[in-house]
Amino acid sequence: MSTALLTDKYELTMLAAALRDGSAHRHCTFEVFARRLPEGRRYGVVAGTGRFLEALEDFTFDDDALASVSGFLDPATLEFLASYRFAGDVDGYAEGELYFPESPVLSVHGSFAECVILETLVLSILNHDSAVASAAARMVSAAEGRPLIEMGSRRTHEQAAIAAARAAWIAGFAGTSNLAAQRAYGVPALGTSAHAFTLLHTTDAGPDERAARDRSERSAFAAQVDALGVGTTLLVDTYDITAGVANAIAVAGPELGAVRIDSGDLGVLVRQVRDQLDALGATGTKIVVSSDLDEFAIAALRAEPVDSYGVGTSLVTGSGAPTAGMVYKLVEVDGRPVQKRSAHKESHGGRKAALRLAKPSGTVVEEVVYRQGHRPEIGGKLTARPLTVELVRAGTRVGGDTDLAAARDRVAAGLRSLPWDGLGLSKGDPAIPTRLPAPA
Amino acid sequence: MSTALLTDKYELTMLAAALRDGSAHRHCTFEVFARRLPEGRRYGVVAGTGRFLEALEDFTFDDDALASVSGFLDPATLEFLASYRFAGDVDGYAEGELYFPESPVLSVHGSFAECVILETLVLSILNHDSAVASAAARMVSAAEGRPLIEMGSRRTHEQAAIAAARAAWIAGFAGTSNLAAQRAYGVPALGTSAHAFTLLHTTDAGPDERAARDRSERSAFAAQVDALGVGTTLLVDTYDITAGVANAIAVAGPELGAVRIDSGDLGVLVRQVRDQLDALGATGTKIVVSSDLDEFAIAALRAEPVDSYGVGTSLVTGSGAPTAGMVYKLVEVDGRPVQKRSAHKESHGGRKAALRLAKPSGTVVEEVVYRQGHRPEIGGKLTARPLTVELVRAGTRVGGDTDLAAARDRVAAGLRSLPWDGLGLSKGDPAIPTRLPAPA
Repeated sequence: MSTALLTDKYELTMLAAALRDGSAHRHCTFEVFARRLPEGRRYGVVAGTGRFLEALEDFTFDDDALASVSGFLDPATLEFLASYRFAGDVDGYAEGELYFPESPVLSVHGSFAECVILETLVLSILNHDSAVASAAARMVSAAEGRPLIEMGSRRTHEQAAIAAARAAWIAGFAGTSNLAAQRAYGVPALGTSAHAFTLLHTTDAGPDERAARDRSERSAFAAQVDALGVGTTLLVDTYDITAGVANAIAVAGPELGAVRIDSGDLGVLVRQVRDQLDALGATGTKIVVSSDLDEFAIAALRAEPVDSYGVGTSLVTGSGAPTAGMVYKLVEVDGRPVQKRSAHKESHGGRKAALRLAKPSGTVVEEVVYRQGHRPEIGGKLTARPLTVELVRAGTRVGGDTDLAAARDRVAAGLRSLPWDGLGLSKGDPAIPTRLPAPA
Repeated sequence: MSTALLTDKYELTMLAAALRDGSAHRHCTFEVFARRLPEGRRYGVVAGTGRFLEALEDFTFDDDALASVSGFLDPATLEFLASYRFAGDVDGYAEGELYFPESPVLSVHGSFAECVILETLVLSILNHDSAVASAAARMVSAAEGRPLIEMGSRRTHEQAAIAAARAAWIAGFAGTSNLAAQRAYGVPALGTSAHAFTLLHTTDAGPDERAARDRSERSAFAAQVDALGVGTTLLVDTYDITAGVANAIAVAGPELGAVRIDSGDLGVLVRQVRDQLDALGATGTKIVVSSDLDEFAIAALRAEPVDSYGVGTSLVTGSGAPTAGMVYKLVEVDGRPVQKRSAHKESHGGRKAALRLAKPSGTVVEEVVYRQGHRPEIGGKLTARPLTVELVRAGTRVGGDTDLAAARDRVAAGLRSLPWDGLGLSKGDPAIPTRLPAPA
């Protein structure tokens, strides 16, 4: 599938104008960075790099794509597009790296013509996936080792859902509800049943409504255990949670895998349910909670006997920051740094790379962004880890992960490397400062 | 492309369990509704219905899809999926209708087996598209007739961007930056140039930096006018706006189509630029503004000589409400109403339809949701417009729009029908109350 029309019209009209006056062939660097983190966030997580590199390979204008832009482009521009294949270079942070304000997350080098038309594709992917991964990482650190399940597909665009599951997995989630994400990226798919399954087993209420509900619930639980085994997770809050837990253990026995609670005051309910399960001898039965959880609700349940969390809406919507706010800016033309000069929108000219400085303990202390070719000397006991890696050379992919495990490891390592207050969930400053090069 | 894996795993495990105990064949109604509007919103706009009806036709399990779920499903379930094609009925609000809390936006009728597995697909599409359309409609009413251009593709997932452009168009936007949306849905694509195009034309600064910038800007403007004609829109804020406007008119003459301002204090700048353009004789040159606009910023510019607005981030992220929060609930089994009974999550059982009551003036006064077959008598001078229409019968599409114009007209009519305070942008109650049927 061509990705070439995932593009804003103005990129092609700029291309047309630049081809006409010859400036299209100037050698350019475009840089992807975020001027700031979402309000109060202390770090971001780069995600989408791998998806972008795949989409770049499919960024060619087939007949259908050409036909749909032929109405507003001249023959020379259409000819350029017909043979277009990105032949430049891409550098950037590896997927799963943390980032901070002004981190040069991705750099695209080539002619103006070949670079300018990638703006929307690059940004759509990195802004979406990084927003989800950044929220997911906060949830992972809030959960302190307990597994998290991504179940937000229904709260976002159907294709965004797949990318969100991928981003959550990179950030450390244990799995997803989304089958397409399992198919596309090998993210483990998880999930058992909804309230509808219990309601399906409704029976005539008769004179005793409570007895009818118990029949309905036990019948549903029996069917689920029969189909999926006693290791399954039974959803116990369709009617009354205490009755639901009793029905679950009555049907499945104390070897039941888990119960799920999807409503109510979870802090209170989880402890009650734990006590009830233990009293029924189901000491190994786990408790899964899922009910509009975000990183704050997850953290608030730390002291409770929760075994795992299901997270939906807040994950796929970036928990208040649904886009990472990254921009794609022209920073260098034929070796000359350029930058916009309007108030409040300074961008720093020149092709750049970055290092992250850490103490011998591994705790990071500073992000150092420098002009390409001007790597600063780092003195003292600090280690300087290069963040900018080669991803594409002359149009050919030379880097980026071949599977998601490396990115997942990188997020985990990144979270471990933050100073203690960098993991705070409350609003704060970036966990480490960014040192910028002197204005060009 | 099969849409069958755009599904949460639990739908298929429920299916497996229900096939095993025979309950899968019970006749069910699932209902899509929002328990509440996003905080403070006064109405919502239904969008995505047409996309769902298309996706439903592609909801079949090909060999690839079957292979990817074969690891956790039994042979009987796989056999069911291999021959799956939805053969039930769908009713719902026409695309573009307004909705309110508890409005039965979509109803799916059929066997449990054929309905349950559509949950994620239905909700992903309606929640995303309705969130964007609902935000877009507020922007359209805030703009009071001035055109709005959707340019948020870079701030959302690359496929969600296409759906967002479609939803914005339905809600009354004049066009989109997104070429794929033009290709897929005929949404007019708009856009001319970015700051990068001016920066590309950078020249050696020499001793006079200001003169160098003017050369760069004039050179870029000349190239754009040469390629796109004087009717184009020149972006005048790369360096200094006053100089930018002067350069624009110097290059293009007073027949220039428009200038765009993308930064700064727009309220002040727009008036200055208008005065400057008029003084230069460019009285017909329009002013386009675009700089993190949302409905509030749009409304705040009402008194200024803005000709059109470009809206990005806030549009595609639903302006604070990135998902519509609709749910897909089993409400009826074999003719018997069912509902979950946990605290705070009441859903109202039984298959339902809806009317909207209006005064003779056309102003709406109430949403009436009723149990199917129990349409209430509406007395007095109120008119009662049925909202629930047939969309699919026995698996065949019988309704829904064939193009987007009808949906676009419906949003416009819906906005006109609201009581005056229903268009308020500040936080408020739903514009009209919803009358619910007595609990079943």
